[in-house]
Amino acid sequence: MNQVSDFTAALARALPESAFRLSADDRRPFETDWRGLFNNASAAILLPGSTDETAQMLKLCNEHGIAVVPQGGNTGLVGGAVPIENSGAQAILSLRRMRAIRNVDPLNNTMEIEAGVILQAAQQAAEAADRLLPLSLAAEGSCQVGGTIATNAGGIQVLAYGSMRNLVLGLEVVLPDGQVWNGLRSLRKDNTGIDLKQIFIGSEGILGVITAATLRLVPRPRKSLTALAAISDPHQALALLRATQENFGSELTSCEYFGAAGLELVSRHLPGAVSPFANSHPAFVLLEVSSLDADADLAARIEPVFERLVTDGTLQDVVIAQNETQRQRLWALREALSEGERAAGGAIKHDIAVPIFAIPDVLHSIESGLPEIAPGARPNIFGHLGDGNLHVNIMPPEGRAIDLLLARATEITSFIEGVVVAAGGTFSAEHGIGQLRLKSLKQHRSSLELELMRAIKGVLDPKWMMNPGKVLNQGS
Amino acid sequence: MNQVSDFTAALARALPESAFRLSADDRRPFETDWRGLFNNASAAILLPGSTDETAQMLKLCNEHGIAVVPQGGNTGLVGGAVPIENSGAQAILSLRRMRAIRNVDPLNNTMEIEAGVILQAAQQAAEAADRLLPLSLAAEGSCQVGGTIATNAGGIQVLAYGSMRNLVLGLEVVLPDGQVWNGLRSLRKDNTGIDLKQIFIGSEGILGVITAATLRLVPRPRKSLTALAAISDPHQALALLRATQENFGSELTSCEYFGAAGLELVSRHLPGAVSPFANSHPAFVLLEVSSLDADADLAARIEPVFERLVTDGTLQDVVIAQNETQRQRLWALREALSEGERAAGGAIKHDIAVPIFAIPDVLHSIESGLPEIAPGARPNIFGHLGDGNLHVNIMPPEGRAIDLLLARATEITSFIEGVVVAAGGTFSAEHGIGQLRLKSLKQHRSSLELELMRAIKGVLDPKWMMNPGKVLNQGS
Repeated sequence: MNQVSDFTAALARALPESAFRLSADDRRPFETDWRGLFNNASAAILLPGSTDETAQMLKLCNEHGIAVVPQGGNTGLVGGAVPIENSGAQAILSLRRMRAIRNVDPLNNTMEIEAGVILQAAQQAAEAADRLLPLSLAAEGSCQVGGTIATNAGGIQVLAYGSMRNLVLGLEVVLPDGQVWNGLRSLRKDNTGIDLKQIFIGSEGILGVITAATLRLVPRPRKSLTALAAISDPHQALALLRATQENFGSELTSCEYFGAAGLELVSRHLPGAVSPFANSHPAFVLLEVSSLDADADLAARIEPVFERLVTDGTLQDVVIAQNETQRQRLWALREALSEGERAAGGAIKHDIAVPIFAIPDVLHSIESGLPEIAPGARPNIFGHLGDGNLHVNIMPPEGRAIDLLLARATEITSFIEGVVVAAGGTFSAEHGIGQLRLKSLKQHRSSLELELMRAIKGVLDPKWMMNPGKVLNQGS
Repeated sequence: MNQVSDFTAALARALPESAFRLSADDRRPFETDWRGLFNNASAAILLPGSTDETAQMLKLCNEHGIAVVPQGGNTGLVGGAVPIENSGAQAILSLRRMRAIRNVDPLNNTMEIEAGVILQAAQQAAEAADRLLPLSLAAEGSCQVGGTIATNAGGIQVLAYGSMRNLVLGLEVVLPDGQVWNGLRSLRKDNTGIDLKQIFIGSEGILGVITAATLRLVPRPRKSLTALAAISDPHQALALLRATQENFGSELTSCEYFGAAGLELVSRHLPGAVSPFANSHPAFVLLEVSSLDADADLAARIEPVFERLVTDGTLQDVVIAQNETQRQRLWALREALSEGERAAGGAIKHDIAVPIFAIPDVLHSIESGLPEIAPGARPNIFGHLGDGNLHVNIMPPEGRAIDLLLARATEITSFIEGVVVAAGGTFSAEHGIGQLRLKSLKQHRSSLELELMRAIKGVLDPKWMMNPGKVLNQGS
């Protein structure tokens, strides 16, 4: 392939050795996604150490007709950061070397950081300045801030602080032709024409490469209280959400749901994980409330709410963590759900959101309709109740391999998405489209909406060389 | 003019009489902006009663080459909703007849409303469902929701709840060629490709006409406390902001700044407006904290903070409103600032934002540099301290007419914008560009940024017929 060898020769002339890797062995770890669903060859791994190097690389790729696949921590669930099959030459551009925390400003409540900073490192830098970077998700130990912006990541604190979009004040982006747009402003308000950064947030690398960002920080809560409630059905989960929201508003920082199936998975695969309840229950809600007031008596405020809900039969039971160890044990039940599912052999995953009031009906429709489509399949449904965002993961019958289910994957997904969209919901709440959900996007969005997205893509990436085969295809 | 008479004849054939006005007398009230800065002729007033009628009108305008100027409550401060001079035929499309509140859903915490709903009516509809629509600004009695979206309005609660962008979950937009994009989703999370609604929010009518929206509501606070603090300089204002933010976070719902000049204007023009302080002071900060907890003792939480700040000399004095009447009196001082200024003969207005820490230096530079540029001119500086957003309004010397100053307007604005932009700030925080700030946008944004905005405009409005001469010009 002349095209690729010309490109790599140009790369070697223009950039230091540390900035790229070409051997198959070196490329391999970048080519497979975290779930192991996708594994396609790349032409090169680009490892820019700066915005300038990123710009040079995109310019070279543009000149040589090499497509660019931006990659952060490679923790995405829809194959958005790895190459597609059967395309032309694709270079993976990993931001992992761009790890500078340029500044943390506790007066302005902002931080400016490079895209390759691990989310947890960014959280720690904020904490060191006595501030909170309020984005928290399971992959925080390995995902990169740039990736969380490119995918508009959510997680367990969206209820109080919003998704990543809500935390981004400014961006630096390298465009497909190598031009650098410096939009690193650190202002709360800036109404000066079309807000370009909004177009890049959540665009999954199809418009350019985010190299740095200014993020909004908030004061750190001084007190928090974590509780686990046992319920008998989703209507009760909503009643609990409503009651705590009325009393705590944005002090309700997490409201997570999981079912008995999830608890069982976790108990089986996580050493020491046990239900704090003597009896078994159909479902659970994990709540966390937080206050900036160091003297706040959160227990005194929430206990009357719980008492009322237990008395009127809304809650079957409830426990409040009495110390940090108990708090971590409750959270471990929620956090281990994905790992438990993985250990049990995996699942066909869905990441849906519906209007809050529709949750009980949607869950009922899915649970009652599923046996017809996939007899014996076990739904493991959990997620961010307060955002209307649930992960509807379908596992094979007990003792059977996931392969059995994969043959029915299209029907299962189509059934679940149908129920969700009919209820005014979305088939992708926080995971994005990547290469996994292209068909769903095409099916569930109007042709006008897709046409507008393609037209905007065409403006920023006229040759369609950024992250090909993700989100949109050029022709249709 | 054949073009216009052809258009109005087509209009009369296609639409009911209630949907347009053609006489000069009927057109006049729509042609002048609230400040009286701009007054240019329109070819027709379009008054759609529905999304369908809006679509028909845009189609007709598109076919006849008539430009469209969308207009909400016409309360903007930069001439964004009235025609420009010396352009071709322009029809003003007022949304005032589209006033349906389609639904308010207290379970999902959302409302779906048409663009022409007055902001105050929307607030009241939310209140009737025991919810808060957390956007509040001086013009709320006459501005329309569609206008607040098209301008990404801010106001006095941005600190806690964000600007309008943060409250919009879904949009319905009629494109320049009459196609309707229905993006009225009511979800907290929806990561499905490029987020089109973000492009329309804050785009000031240059990309299409917003006809309806789904907005996010929040629980209504059950308790609030309002206080006015007297300070001797802006450093102290920041110390006060920081201290209350650390203790109240998003429970600090307002933090407004004004100077002695503003207080004097208000006292002179607002019957009964008096300072609650015995002595005079250089500047003031109006604070409001709010809690969802009906039993919250906000005074007990804030008094120790105030005591500490009075003791260490940060605050000169402070009063806490003891009842609703006192609360309204304190707010009246802040809210009457624009009216007071207007009654005194007007001012050259600026709407700037800077990083919070830069406020004292920026104010100092402006106040010390101004006499050289406009001897005797009086700055009236006030605004949303917590957002870094101040209105830097320059009034003529005592007893002189504003005309004197208008001759120096370009120099004054250029000086103030220079100081602000050098400090990492913006020349338009919440008012937008309209026709007043086109030159500033061109001066202070990179050519790449302007080029990208123009390219996106070209995608959505290829004939450049939407709100011509606002925000961007086609050629440069």
